Amino acid sequence: MSTKYPQHLLKLIAFFKLFPGVGGKTAERFAFSLLDWKSEQTQDFGKLLAQLPQMVQYCEECGCLKGEENCFFCNNPLRETGTLCLVASVKDVFAFEQTRTFSGLYHVLGGLLSPLEGLDPESLSLEKLKKRILEKEIKEVILALDSTVEGDTTALYIKQFFSSLPLKLSRLAFGLPLGSNLDFIDGGTLARALGGRQSF
Amino acid sequence: MSTKYPQHLLKLIAFFKLFPGVGGKTAERFAFSLLDWKSEQTQDFGKLLAQLPQMVQYCEECGCLKGEENCFFCNNPLRETGTLCLVASVKDVFAFEQTRTFSGLYHVLGGLLSPLEGLDPESLSLEKLKKRILEKEIKEVILALDSTVEGDTTALYIKQFFSSLPLKLSRLAFGLPLGSNLDFIDGGTLARALGGRQSF
Repeated sequence: MSTKYPQHLLKLIAFFKLFPGVGGKTAERFAFSLLDWKSEQTQDFGKLLAQLPQMVQYCEECGCLKGEENCFFCNNPLRETGTLCLVASVKDVFAFEQTRTFSGLYHVLGGLLSPLEGLDPESLSLEKLKKRILEKEIKEVILALDSTVEGDTTALYIKQFFSSLPLKLSRLAFGLPLGSNLDFIDGGTLARALGGRQSF
Repeated sequence: MSTKYPQHLLKLIAFFKLFPGVGGKTAERFAFSLLDWKSEQTQDFGKLLAQLPQMVQYCEECGCLKGEENCFFCNNPLRETGTLCLVASVKDVFAFEQTRTFSGLYHVLGGLLSPLEGLDPESLSLEKLKKRILEKEIKEVILALDSTVEGDTTALYIKQFFSSLPLKLSRLAFGLPLGSNLDFIDGGTLARALGGRQSF
């Protein structure tokens, strides 16, 4: 194997395998497709990648991504400061912003409580969040966490942790996803949708 | 959208969308997964990519990929020079070498005849191949082309083109793929497998 293929290409394939959901075959396909690119394009892509760690960083206050400028959310007069949306990862911020229905602040937890993955309450740095809530005079915290066991556990823990604060805690609604047929909805979701029914 | 996310990340996502089979969601997932990499790792990957056009090139003689060294196949005393395997793309060379059952030479056509995609006989540069066959005294050319309309057309065209040369032309066998159930084999394949049956 070793000398037949350019080492360079084999190394690239190994890197592509690190991406989520990419196995050996797909990694090969990606590497070979690069050979059809214009060389300037490949070089631009490579430079962008190499600069990524310097150019994109996490905001120290809210944990969102920021470029060379300041964080878009913190200290932005156009954002409502009374409401804070608590999410597990930066990718969730991306998802919420695409809905264009929320204009408050965000706070990225960086994970959910999961004993199996070694994520305990200390690793979520909730003390930092508490300090932020008090300083910014946040009135409502929306728990926008996954509807999984880890999400539920984290939501309950946070509820207890913040029980002493004069704070409104809310959680995303559970129910039918849009465009779904009732036949395909699992019993748990259906029960939650029934329990949370609204007057119409 | 523009300033909320670091421009840098948006540009990277646009590049990831250029890979085969990668849509918007997957491209986002790839870009976000890079943020979890160590910064040295991201930089190494970026540098490798940027160097790719210089480091990996096509051999002028056979069309296979070569690194900084000479082509592994051409002028290698360990390869049999009497047999030449004709493939459509460099990726096919990769596939054959992994079987470890062929030790002859390769020739990469760079495509198959396809009027729809604008690939006519001139673009396959068969004259160059003819010259190579005569110079290297090749005795057998194995047509290792796809079993598609384009592959069949190209094989027939090459047969006519080389009809004047004292050359053995062969084509890969058609039949059942290994591990297949007869119920799931299409009629065409079954007819070819029957026609090409071998004494047992």
